[in-house]
Amino acid sequence: MTGHPRPGRPHPASGAFMPGDPAGSRKFFTIPPERPFALDGGTTLRGVTTAYETWGTLNSDASNAVLLCHAWTGDSHATGPAEAGHPTPGWWEGMIGPGLAIDTERWFVVCPNVLGGCQGSTGPASPHPDDGRPYGSRFPVITIRDMVRVQARLADHLGIKRWHAVVGGSMGGMQVLEWAITYPQRVGGIVPIATCAQATAQQIAWGAIGRRAVQLDPRWRGGDYYDAPEGDGPWQGLAVARMVAQVTFRSDNVFTDRFGRELADGATLGDGLDLWQRFEVERYLDYHGDKLVRRFDTNSYLIIGKAMDLHDVGRGRSGLLAAMARITSPTLVMGISSDILYPSYQQRQIHDLLLSGGTKSEYLEIDSPHGHDAFLINLDQVGPPVAQFLAALPQP
Amino acid sequence: MTGHPRPGRPHPASGAFMPGDPAGSRKFFTIPPERPFALDGGTTLRGVTTAYETWGTLNSDASNAVLLCHAWTGDSHATGPAEAGHPTPGWWEGMIGPGLAIDTERWFVVCPNVLGGCQGSTGPASPHPDDGRPYGSRFPVITIRDMVRVQARLADHLGIKRWHAVVGGSMGGMQVLEWAITYPQRVGGIVPIATCAQATAQQIAWGAIGRRAVQLDPRWRGGDYYDAPEGDGPWQGLAVARMVAQVTFRSDNVFTDRFGRELADGATLGDGLDLWQRFEVERYLDYHGDKLVRRFDTNSYLIIGKAMDLHDVGRGRSGLLAAMARITSPTLVMGISSDILYPSYQQRQIHDLLLSGGTKSEYLEIDSPHGHDAFLINLDQVGPPVAQFLAALPQP
Repeated sequence: MTGHPRPGRPHPASGAFMPGDPAGSRKFFTIPPERPFALDGGTTLRGVTTAYETWGTLNSDASNAVLLCHAWTGDSHATGPAEAGHPTPGWWEGMIGPGLAIDTERWFVVCPNVLGGCQGSTGPASPHPDDGRPYGSRFPVITIRDMVRVQARLADHLGIKRWHAVVGGSMGGMQVLEWAITYPQRVGGIVPIATCAQATAQQIAWGAIGRRAVQLDPRWRGGDYYDAPEGDGPWQGLAVARMVAQVTFRSDNVFTDRFGRELADGATLGDGLDLWQRFEVERYLDYHGDKLVRRFDTNSYLIIGKAMDLHDVGRGRSGLLAAMARITSPTLVMGISSDILYPSYQQRQIHDLLLSGGTKSEYLEIDSPHGHDAFLINLDQVGPPVAQFLAALPQP
Repeated sequence: MTGHPRPGRPHPASGAFMPGDPAGSRKFFTIPPERPFALDGGTTLRGVTTAYETWGTLNSDASNAVLLCHAWTGDSHATGPAEAGHPTPGWWEGMIGPGLAIDTERWFVVCPNVLGGCQGSTGPASPHPDDGRPYGSRFPVITIRDMVRVQARLADHLGIKRWHAVVGGSMGGMQVLEWAITYPQRVGGIVPIATCAQATAQQIAWGAIGRRAVQLDPRWRGGDYYDAPEGDGPWQGLAVARMVAQVTFRSDNVFTDRFGRELADGATLGDGLDLWQRFEVERYLDYHGDKLVRRFDTNSYLIIGKAMDLHDVGRGRSGLLAAMARITSPTLVMGISSDILYPSYQQRQIHDLLLSGGTKSEYLEIDSPHGHDAFLINLDQVGPPVAQFLAALPQP
């Protein structure tokens, strides 16, 4: 009963981008430290940096810019090959490029890493301006609205007064909605995918379990693990948190089709049953847990997860209906038939609220067995309607 | 970021029934140590004890006995008030008693605590016959079939050659199916509820996450924590494992209706967002985690959870179809409309396999928003068909 040894340890890094790491395709924009950034939570951050990538060319009147918002563990590398600092190709590879759905011959595409992230933007692993040591437990709780207001500063910096469209799935979709509500004049159209207007109790519950799992890992050290000896980070807690998420990202059907009741490593059930003899699905979850800890900072995982739990477009705006009524941009809402994390009734709700407020909205459901992750997988269904929506949007 | 203090610690006990504890309504049957009990996994256990409770009177030809099989964290206390050793009323209170669905004026009802459990039956917290110290990490992995074969010894002991019916939900339903397959001559009819013929990859995934969470708790000590100082047990790991289960036992709708986005302790979201400020749903999950650790042994939770993951009626029996074809007992299969853990397609599968094998089967779906736990909640829908099924079953 002593436990299956976990592969991939010890681990040299926190998974966070550190000053001096190869920038790859990333560019950086820092809000001048003398203009502290005010957070929803009442505190401020100084010298907030956003890492971002761009594709295509901004036209002369800056009217062709499309903003992509990434999900929980995403980053600015929406498309492009693996490179220094980005061990895998872009998270929406095949969607963005010349002649593709988000056509970079027509659109100037911008993808920023969110505030609180760990791939070049200011987050818990970043140096605190006071002492140059990582924020760790000192990093404040942030909200989706904070992420969006930082992105607005980036837009100012890039000379983009108004996005032709803002597009994103999952947590990206939360940012999309907040963009349209906070800055209705700066958004031509929006595409929220597999997302919600308010996190539900069940979504919060999944998030809470991940937090507890990290808290349970003694190597998390209350968030101040950056000075720990090499390989002594909270990887196991993060891996368990990721396992929870990974199950909710997929579906019962896909797990059955892909793994069934197979044992890992070609083993068979015979004599000598072992508590730690893994089924193939466990190996898969371990693999994804291990893969994440190699590229992602645990504190960023917590901080961004909490931002999602706090997501509620109605907060401080007289409720859901009043908030949604602020959206005036034409909208393409997409849901996924097999999504158990953000069930399609949540996207239909967004659509219905927009229609009842008189806003032009279209709802489209991706028919897929892949669950929540289908927006990253079924590009044949996601791409064409997005392309059509971008092309049909009126330009100012 | 140092973490919300968890209530209810330190904790004096492992949650397990120990020799010398008040028996309450429990009786005990021990297989003589000189007849070692052979396990599916190839090893043996000596002196296996089963704690059980009974209600009603066995008739002269022992033809009125009904076996109740409990779920993961259940025990022999299916009905009856809280008492010494049973801090809460029975888990199926309202279903069993004079004039109730399982009418104890007619039926002799037996409910044993499963092998591997911690409420009086032999499990990881029991004394090892070699040295009298708890098994801990020495306790072998067991299967649902092992549980059922131990129950058959109890039936022999009670003079019951054939159960009028075997009834159970969730893991109880797994035992029900194994009873009908292993001992077709000893079962008059079966009622498997909210269960499956084979654990799916998704079910295994949830189980695996719970195992990992316990493993992550340094106080688990590889399973040998019984000698740890008072209050130093693996309660936090078990609580996280329980949180995962608790979400899958309920439903999105119920969580939304009951908790929504309320904060715990009447707090409101204002300035000063806190990573550990709990939503009401988190408080609920914490409460259930804490409640479980007060009454349940962590190693039992792991061992029984693994038995469920290993559940596959087809294993070693030439597959699912051949195994299900062994069932000859009339069957009432019940599913739950909102069950996300054992979705109703799994109960329909049981029903369809029985029909195609020529066995009399009826399928009935409980229409409830409560998710998997509905079989413990919606007794108005569960009771009448069970009563009718028991009454209509032919007696030999």
